[in-house]
Amino acid sequence: MENSFLFLIVTLACVVNVTCKLNKKQSAECELPENLMKEIDSYAPVVKTIVEAAVNGTYKGATWQELAYFVDKFGSRISGSKALEDSIDYVLERSHKLKLDNVHGETVKVPNWIRGKESASLMKPRVKHLAMLGLGYSVGTPPEGITAKAIVVKSFAELKQRAAEVPGCIVVYNQKFVSYNETVQYRSHGASEAAKLGAVAVLIRSVTPFSLYTPHTGMMSYASNVKQIPAACITVEDAALLNRIADRGDDLQINIKMEAKNYPDVESRNIISEVTGTVLPEKVVVVSGHIDSWDVGQGAMDDGGGAFISWNALILLRKLGLQARRTIRSIMWTCEELGIVGATQYIRSHKSEESNLQLVMESDMGTFTPLGLEVTGTELVKCILQRVLRLLKPMGELGIRSPHGGPDIEEWVNSGVPGASLWNKNDRYFWYHHTNADTIAVESPHALDKGTALFAAVSYVIADLSIDLPHHGKKSHSKHPIYHQ
Amino acid sequence: MENSFLFLIVTLACVVNVTCKLNKKQSAECELPENLMKEIDSYAPVVKTIVEAAVNGTYKGATWQELAYFVDKFGSRISGSKALEDSIDYVLERSHKLKLDNVHGETVKVPNWIRGKESASLMKPRVKHLAMLGLGYSVGTPPEGITAKAIVVKSFAELKQRAAEVPGCIVVYNQKFVSYNETVQYRSHGASEAAKLGAVAVLIRSVTPFSLYTPHTGMMSYASNVKQIPAACITVEDAALLNRIADRGDDLQINIKMEAKNYPDVESRNIISEVTGTVLPEKVVVVSGHIDSWDVGQGAMDDGGGAFISWNALILLRKLGLQARRTIRSIMWTCEELGIVGATQYIRSHKSEESNLQLVMESDMGTFTPLGLEVTGTELVKCILQRVLRLLKPMGELGIRSPHGGPDIEEWVNSGVPGASLWNKNDRYFWYHHTNADTIAVESPHALDKGTALFAAVSYVIADLSIDLPHHGKKSHSKHPIYHQ
Repeated sequence: MENSFLFLIVTLACVVNVTCKLNKKQSAECELPENLMKEIDSYAPVVKTIVEAAVNGTYKGATWQELAYFVDKFGSRISGSKALEDSIDYVLERSHKLKLDNVHGETVKVPNWIRGKESASLMKPRVKHLAMLGLGYSVGTPPEGITAKAIVVKSFAELKQRAAEVPGCIVVYNQKFVSYNETVQYRSHGASEAAKLGAVAVLIRSVTPFSLYTPHTGMMSYASNVKQIPAACITVEDAALLNRIADRGDDLQINIKMEAKNYPDVESRNIISEVTGTVLPEKVVVVSGHIDSWDVGQGAMDDGGGAFISWNALILLRKLGLQARRTIRSIMWTCEELGIVGATQYIRSHKSEESNLQLVMESDMGTFTPLGLEVTGTELVKCILQRVLRLLKPMGELGIRSPHGGPDIEEWVNSGVPGASLWNKNDRYFWYHHTNADTIAVESPHALDKGTALFAAVSYVIADLSIDLPHHGKKSHSKHPIYHQ
Repeated sequence: MENSFLFLIVTLACVVNVTCKLNKKQSAECELPENLMKEIDSYAPVVKTIVEAAVNGTYKGATWQELAYFVDKFGSRISGSKALEDSIDYVLERSHKLKLDNVHGETVKVPNWIRGKESASLMKPRVKHLAMLGLGYSVGTPPEGITAKAIVVKSFAELKQRAAEVPGCIVVYNQKFVSYNETVQYRSHGASEAAKLGAVAVLIRSVTPFSLYTPHTGMMSYASNVKQIPAACITVEDAALLNRIADRGDDLQINIKMEAKNYPDVESRNIISEVTGTVLPEKVVVVSGHIDSWDVGQGAMDDGGGAFISWNALILLRKLGLQARRTIRSIMWTCEELGIVGATQYIRSHKSEESNLQLVMESDMGTFTPLGLEVTGTELVKCILQRVLRLLKPMGELGIRSPHGGPDIEEWVNSGVPGASLWNKNDRYFWYHHTNADTIAVESPHALDKGTALFAAVSYVIADLSIDLPHHGKKSHSKHPIYHQ
């Protein structure tokens, strides 16, 4: 407590005087006050110890082993499922066993959407099975399914132009993949847009740049005052096939059967564990990822990897006996996939502690080879993180880019809390995203070691630093889109 | 006929005196007799016309359009299916309509293996659906399926070491992918090797270097005097999962249900069409690919592309009014996938005409961007083809490598007939091979145009040349493996 005033002085001096030149895309050198630079650089030995242990030493391969065991044992972990709750029990138990501090679950009400059996078939001009995955929150069909004429459109604009053809039809969207954030609009809002014009169901081309006849799932939502119609994704290949057949002038008839149903909310838990701070335990650096997944694949990439580098960063620090002045808290969020439910409830119920947050970190865009951090914060925050990453040089050139990308810390960051997400070599992320191919096979032991090292080193240094990181101004609304709910 | 003696003289001179220096992997310059070089080079204008028409002109995109219509209309075309016979009727009708010569089908007895419904599930230590595809010729299971303890091995060597554990078990092969030709041994012979030791069924890791939870099918065969047990491929991901679970000491129990059955042979047809030679119609250059496919995907890559560049080469020559001195014959082989059945019957029943074959060409390893030709033949043959490919330079640097790769012309080539297969940029071929992802989405219009141009130009020049290509010595057995039956 006695250091608070000093912190304030240093912080203000930094905010006012420091010249921080940061390229928005790629990290560049910052000028920090000499004493702050020296302080950060003085962590070089401890960072070296962390990196060595994770990448070459006793902890080498441990994150992958922990994650593989976990996803093999529990499989996919959708909100509302027994698998999710069993997996939460397991993490709690193991956290206790590994002697982390303040281990507990915090109860959250979560949605309970259950897919059930589902299928789609082209009936005319010829019979063909269409691989599909119903979308989260979608309603189901009657038991005999919905059989209707289908029309294929490439865009919302084409849908509107052809409004007269829509009533009574199944609408198939064969939209081009531009980027996830742009193209996901069809998955999110395609059902409502079609229902407004009288469609009876929608099939949407999976939101991905690459397919091996791979259907993807994900969340959708219904606009109010619009009939709720069944919505599913089909493969890129079949969307294009249906489009070609229609373009040749043949009538399409499709049958869709979905048992999907929204059941009453159930209880789940966010999982907390800590390495408690020595001097300022109430001040906190958060490392986090979500434990729930879609009900396909193993949720090893989305977001087993993110949750596990966060948790293993903490385990590694404990094993190394490293305890920072502030608390480092691992949070495994529950129910990210069906609407960032766990994080939203946590952040709102811990509102009074928000000013104590030093930095909130998240990994939810893959745990491929780390490239650095995506940061939202003041220029000072970016410069400090940039300087800390320099200490990780044995792991390659790491940089900063803005803004952070990640859904669970979004509300904090919008309130002014500095946020940092793992920036990684995730070019193929959307190949696997929300599919049966999201398994431990996607994850590399070495990349996970590096992710764990990065999260451990950055969280430790920032939690131990003599200054509090300044919060930035509140944002009324995020300028950047929310990823892959 | 009057030119025969001249042909013989020129041919002998070439065989004896010519220095042909050919790198086995990549094409190099050859020294041909001056007059032969000049003769080949004199085809530059006609080759230019062919390439222009296919790549930029009136035929641009036509091969893709023809193939897309075909695979969209008929879907997959397995031996024994109505879809295959309907698709053969269609090609015959269209060949007549396009005024190709000597259009006809030649009847072949083909196997009739039908997959039926099938599924596999891990039952213990937890219930999990295992995506799978039964293998061609595999027997089925009783209606209730086979439920048994499973053991996982990484190799035939490990299987033998663990022979005592095999009786009554399902054997899961989690062999590493080394190369298709090496690794496919597990798919081909895995059932027999396991059955010898008392296994009740086998599940084999799909033979592929890349997977998005993608099961692959393909042919298998049973050794004589061994119990025929059901055989299927599972995904790379699930094979690895089962291996990890077993390595952790947990017992695996699996249920397999397969309706697969071998029915009596039925009739199919090889499809012949020609541009008849003006001077030596009995002498023939063959361009070919197979029309049948597995019963998954669309068979657009394997081997719609190969069959269609061959057939479209002929159509293009007809449209351009180009008729060579020898006959150019397109053959769409039936039933390649279940054992090269169509080609074998054709080659044997046309044995007496074999000496008239100038060159046999095939495309069955993808129709991605052409790189040249894979050739088996004398050095003279290679040098001539090398020189012809120089004329196609507007399509990029094209070369020769040895030996040819391709199953349907294999028996001819083993008898001494010069053989040339399309060499193309097919690095990802085995990603799609024998899967639901083998659709027209794999095929690029531009690459197909180039393939058609290459087959049209090479077949035309070789069919029109003043000399007969020499046959090489008979081979008792092919030195190179047969690809993807």
